Amino acid sequence: MIQNLDGLIEQYRSELFDSVLPFWLENSIDKEYGGYFTCLDREGKVFDTDKFIWLQGREVWMFAMLYNKVAPRKEWLDAAVKGAEFLKKHGHDGNYNFYFSTTREGEPLVEPYNIFSNTFATMAFGQLAKATGSKEYEEIALKAWNKVLERRDNPKGKWNKLHPGTRNLKNFALPMILCNLSLEIQHLLDENAFKRTTDDFLHEVCDVFIRPELGGLVMENVLSDGTLCDCFEGRHMNPGHAIEAMWFIMDLGEKLGRPELIEMAKDTAIRMAEYGWDKEFGGIYYFMDLKGCPPQELEWDQKLWWVHIETLISMIKGYRLTGDKRCLEWFERVHDYVWTHFKDAEHPEWFGYLNRRGEVLLPLKGGKWKGCFHVPRGLYQVWRTLEAIKAEGKSL
Amino acid sequence: MIQNLDGLIEQYRSELFDSVLPFWLENSIDKEYGGYFTCLDREGKVFDTDKFIWLQGREVWMFAMLYNKVAPRKEWLDAAVKGAEFLKKHGHDGNYNFYFSTTREGEPLVEPYNIFSNTFATMAFGQLAKATGSKEYEEIALKAWNKVLERRDNPKGKWNKLHPGTRNLKNFALPMILCNLSLEIQHLLDENAFKRTTDDFLHEVCDVFIRPELGGLVMENVLSDGTLCDCFEGRHMNPGHAIEAMWFIMDLGEKLGRPELIEMAKDTAIRMAEYGWDKEFGGIYYFMDLKGCPPQELEWDQKLWWVHIETLISMIKGYRLTGDKRCLEWFERVHDYVWTHFKDAEHPEWFGYLNRRGEVLLPLKGGKWKGCFHVPRGLYQVWRTLEAIKAEGKSL
Repeated sequence: MIQNLDGLIEQYRSELFDSVLPFWLENSIDKEYGGYFTCLDREGKVFDTDKFIWLQGREVWMFAMLYNKVAPRKEWLDAAVKGAEFLKKHGHDGNYNFYFSTTREGEPLVEPYNIFSNTFATMAFGQLAKATGSKEYEEIALKAWNKVLERRDNPKGKWNKLHPGTRNLKNFALPMILCNLSLEIQHLLDENAFKRTTDDFLHEVCDVFIRPELGGLVMENVLSDGTLCDCFEGRHMNPGHAIEAMWFIMDLGEKLGRPELIEMAKDTAIRMAEYGWDKEFGGIYYFMDLKGCPPQELEWDQKLWWVHIETLISMIKGYRLTGDKRCLEWFERVHDYVWTHFKDAEHPEWFGYLNRRGEVLLPLKGGKWKGCFHVPRGLYQVWRTLEAIKAEGKSL
Repeated sequence: MIQNLDGLIEQYRSELFDSVLPFWLENSIDKEYGGYFTCLDREGKVFDTDKFIWLQGREVWMFAMLYNKVAPRKEWLDAAVKGAEFLKKHGHDGNYNFYFSTTREGEPLVEPYNIFSNTFATMAFGQLAKATGSKEYEEIALKAWNKVLERRDNPKGKWNKLHPGTRNLKNFALPMILCNLSLEIQHLLDENAFKRTTDDFLHEVCDVFIRPELGGLVMENVLSDGTLCDCFEGRHMNPGHAIEAMWFIMDLGEKLGRPELIEMAKDTAIRMAEYGWDKEFGGIYYFMDLKGCPPQELEWDQKLWWVHIETLISMIKGYRLTGDKRCLEWFERVHDYVWTHFKDAEHPEWFGYLNRRGEVLLPLKGGKWKGCFHVPRGLYQVWRTLEAIKAEGKSL
């Protein structure tokens, strides 16, 4: 159960600065080749040295963001630059198409088929440009960003295995990430470009993927004409994804002064949390099927760290911005689940992968998809939002 | 526990002919567009109509094989032709590169990036050519087979996302399937071609993927020079795959009159069953990591139907061919697990996907990967092998 506001603020702040960040600073930096190790076991020991570009970019972003927003600590800037220099030299094909992965030394392993490598590189260089004032980093951020916009209609390019024309689906992930990314690099965009792209992404998320005929549920894939498709991809539901997107929308709503956006995002987040909650074992399912058919993903019932941490952020932001008590109830429910299931009582950083019952499925602290990102970003966001609630004289 | 030999023969025979085959004949045939529905729920109701080419080919093969080897029943031949005609018209790109999937109507959905679509089409048309004497089916089988051989060194072709040159891995699955496939279409190959290809595949499986320095464990991926690679793919273990391959080798050993192959395959199957067995909850893990690192596959600890059914086949064949009592012990152990966990006591066909504890994870009887194949083929193989054991005057 949630204690007083001050205690809660301290819980999130201390977990971030005294436990999680030291874990990554101590274990993840590759002093020999630059960049970061992300495959770290329960105690922080490296078990694989491949470098996954999503996670390289995200860790650069994390340390640069802390430097920009919390305190200009040299060790944070050094850590961010260590990753950015690796990405600059080894992370892309020479044309700012960022690879999916490289070897420890920086040899390309998996081609730039995945556009999110570019979105996270954009975030990384955008924040680091702010921290350093470097024109070079600014240019890399914009080049990576422009590739995202260019590739938007066929993100996988020549690696796309779908036969063109038969069933053209569009996916929620890209406009969702772009809602966040446009805010992230607003300082690099002119006002018109920011407004145009943001309106565009917001329209996609709010008018295409959120479905009034389904009571406001958020779909992951719809046909290119905006209609629903009764196929595996078309029935695929990802509650955590939808809930995460809603705090991006709340941030945009605050920035743009559009309270109706915030209200809609808060209601949608609550709806998707209710939809995704496992009433038997607790926690939010990873994937579901709109019609209750067997999903194609065998990991559908697992409980993943990022899903729950993003829910904490959306709920505490929703509460702060709207005062809706249901947000607070959801925050409490997920807070209890997270601190009793994902937090490792014996070693720093959190577990990432639990089975349906909430038991640890993989004891890793970092891997191919889990890096220095969702846990520290979530702790930061919740900590800051709780501080704002306090500063605004509200209570829990 | 295993009862007498006659009872066991009847158990496998009756399950195949009185329960599993009627399930597919009644529920899977698409009378309107041809081909098969494979996404069938617990009771056999279609929940998705997309057609996955692996499973189309495998179902053609299944009914054609029964027609050839059990009895020339018209309903089996009709069922096989129904699928073959769909595959002939809609299954490939005009050049005998078989798609991964099509819509119900036969429009291509996923491009021919997956070479196993071709291997299963080869099996399908090869068996059906035998059943019908059709030259056309024979030619399609050979064209599909030649594409497999052509594409062997880069099976994914232009859809390969690996950057060439950095880390060239080769995978166990293709030579493993080819050991079986060369026997399947032996009647279409001249003697030299059969011998040359079979020697080649056997060399790959036995001398490259089975590793003496690891006590004879079977790897899924090694570097192209044959050395091990300490990366996710290089540590990846798939006990069910290895065990399945071993009965392909036993079949080849019998055909080629090479008892040393049979002995080696039997020992390897036992070793991989011991390696993969979950000592806490029973059943064989889906995936493991050679060094005990966290695997990248979140479904690693699940218990899959095909893994266990293929183990039954390898163990009963191993027992019949070598008399090794350990095979019989393993057969009993897995037989008990399979009939109490995968067999659905209320509806025909078997569950496919259990969680680590052996509880049903997905209630489907068929899906994107589970079709009319491993369950009926396994029941057939075990039934026939038990009958041979009886005919040879051996006991259990």
